[in-house]
Amino acid sequence: MTRTLMVELGSRSYPIHIGSGILGRSDMLMPHVGGRQVMVVTNETIAPLYLERLRTALVNVDVHVKVLPDGEHYKNLEVLESIFDALLRVPCDRQTTVIALGGGVVGDIAGFAAACYQRGVPYIQVPTTLLAQVDSSVGGKTAVNHALGKNMIGAFYQPEVVIADIKTLDTLEDRQLHAGLAEVIKYGLIRDPEFFAWLEQHMDGLMGRDTRTLIEAVERSCRNKAQVVAADEREQGERTLLNLGHTFGHAIETATGYGSWLHGEAVAAGMMMAAELSRRLGDLTTDDVSRIKGLLRRAQLPLNPPAELNTAQFRRHMSVDKKVSAGVLRLVLLHTIGEAYVSGDYPPDALTEVFSLRSEAT
Amino acid sequence: MTRTLMVELGSRSYPIHIGSGILGRSDMLMPHVGGRQVMVVTNETIAPLYLERLRTALVNVDVHVKVLPDGEHYKNLEVLESIFDALLRVPCDRQTTVIALGGGVVGDIAGFAAACYQRGVPYIQVPTTLLAQVDSSVGGKTAVNHALGKNMIGAFYQPEVVIADIKTLDTLEDRQLHAGLAEVIKYGLIRDPEFFAWLEQHMDGLMGRDTRTLIEAVERSCRNKAQVVAADEREQGERTLLNLGHTFGHAIETATGYGSWLHGEAVAAGMMMAAELSRRLGDLTTDDVSRIKGLLRRAQLPLNPPAELNTAQFRRHMSVDKKVSAGVLRLVLLHTIGEAYVSGDYPPDALTEVFSLRSEAT
Repeated sequence: MTRTLMVELGSRSYPIHIGSGILGRSDMLMPHVGGRQVMVVTNETIAPLYLERLRTALVNVDVHVKVLPDGEHYKNLEVLESIFDALLRVPCDRQTTVIALGGGVVGDIAGFAAACYQRGVPYIQVPTTLLAQVDSSVGGKTAVNHALGKNMIGAFYQPEVVIADIKTLDTLEDRQLHAGLAEVIKYGLIRDPEFFAWLEQHMDGLMGRDTRTLIEAVERSCRNKAQVVAADEREQGERTLLNLGHTFGHAIETATGYGSWLHGEAVAAGMMMAAELSRRLGDLTTDDVSRIKGLLRRAQLPLNPPAELNTAQFRRHMSVDKKVSAGVLRLVLLHTIGEAYVSGDYPPDALTEVFSLRSEAT
Repeated sequence: MTRTLMVELGSRSYPIHIGSGILGRSDMLMPHVGGRQVMVVTNETIAPLYLERLRTALVNVDVHVKVLPDGEHYKNLEVLESIFDALLRVPCDRQTTVIALGGGVVGDIAGFAAACYQRGVPYIQVPTTLLAQVDSSVGGKTAVNHALGKNMIGAFYQPEVVIADIKTLDTLEDRQLHAGLAEVIKYGLIRDPEFFAWLEQHMDGLMGRDTRTLIEAVERSCRNKAQVVAADEREQGERTLLNLGHTFGHAIETATGYGSWLHGEAVAAGMMMAAELSRRLGDLTTDDVSRIKGLLRRAQLPLNPPAELNTAQFRRHMSVDKKVSAGVLRLVLLHTIGEAYVSGDYPPDALTEVFSLRSEAT
């Protein structure tokens, strides 16, 4: 049961293969390896688990490997430079294919390294976390973090192919699985109410790591993402909606120092903040908010921002968000479950209130 | 006497304005500033000379300034990061326009910062050296150097407009002027024999900094570059010819530690090496080589690589060149003056000979 979707971007279109046990499939990988050199970028957690299996799929090419430390904390310019060092020490030429084997951090930093090395070499995403499979490996957003803001340095740069092997989720920590579900739920919230309802029916299967249910969730998530990216690759419009909960979430991640909160956890709390703000604006009903909260809770995700983060800190960290324009912070909000919009027009007091959401509200 | 050329790249087309005293022209600059924030990136040499004049052209926007140390030695990831720091400390939003005010180093690093900041903000080139005006500010190649190779980390990213004020050349050191002439001569060599002949007639005027002669040379150089870039933006084919002398030149720059040889000086020596190799292949005549050598000599440019750089060092530094493909180093060579080609098919002995060109050969 392998599913293939296309991200339609003209000459830069590419397939997403989703299946169980497809990591070692030469027939999916090698058609997208152009040169004779490959640099696999992975991390210390993933390498012992999946590197050898990936190697079996790489035939008739020189395979080099760069192993990064594990964690969002390492998604920075210094680690990026270490990838350039590795590429130049070989030295890898301009036809080299970079393969990102790992989660969102590996994919983002390896993709950005590929975007910049010799002004751009091809790269392939082999995501091994749910979050990476449903979100970060698709759509060509690459980046590293800066101490003053998440994903502030990066490029739009599309991969040649995405190979999402659901089998790799077997070794994923529960906390990472739950974090990935935040982005899955996001697609339902912003544009796919049927998918949201499906998730309400199938959350137990997802939490129990049922393969078919996971494949279905990854496929439906990727299909949503592929449609949005095809319509708006460089985030001039609709793609902004994919950032539901992310402005709040990035502030949480930046303020807590990257890594103490997982990205998906911060996004979950951020989506609740966006939902609460939307309710205050008269869009979402109390019942809608309860459904959202209920689904996030079943995925064992945080429903509130960290207690130690105060309003002034939120404001400061949100002021560098990429959606700030002419001094106005635009936020992704919800008309209803399945319909999101972007607005910079909300009462400041309502925003201040959601900064203060705490567990008593859950 | 202001000339305007267009670089034709579809939706990313942009004008090049060439004239004397146009640095403070709001009417040329402001139509290309979209947001309400501007970050001028310049260096410690240029800022005292031209920053205030540029400021007068920037109306109704917040102007921030990042002053870099001067020199190729500083075109690295560390200095790049300091630009991101400056942008985020403001903080500058995604509509911010980056303006590169300076020579090739400032243009390359500021352009790359613009390419990466928030995954891409608009930028404007205001080149103040001859080399930047005729070459590096046009065509969207941005980059920083790595200890193991020049321009190894970068992006293809086009500016909104290029404003080449010939008046800024008044304050240029002689050595920098001469270095710029190397790239001017290059256009004649690779594709414009009439321009090469014109340069033979007008070299005295150029060396004497005659304004009209300089404007003519900059315009003819930019027209050549714009045509090549329009036909092959991402260097899949014809654009490679612009690298005549650069593979040798980059090796000289990298081996000598960036900055002891100016880029144009290294390119001049590299073009002589390419010419000598072309003569050995039976393409260029002895007379052609003499004409090339004569013109470079009149521009007071080096005609040979540094004596301390041996064959092994050349080979090592050239092995990471971006034109290496499947282990073969492709070089830009000359059929005749005005006609270049790319080839990986040359006798190894002939290449070794040109590594050893020394002053006794001049």
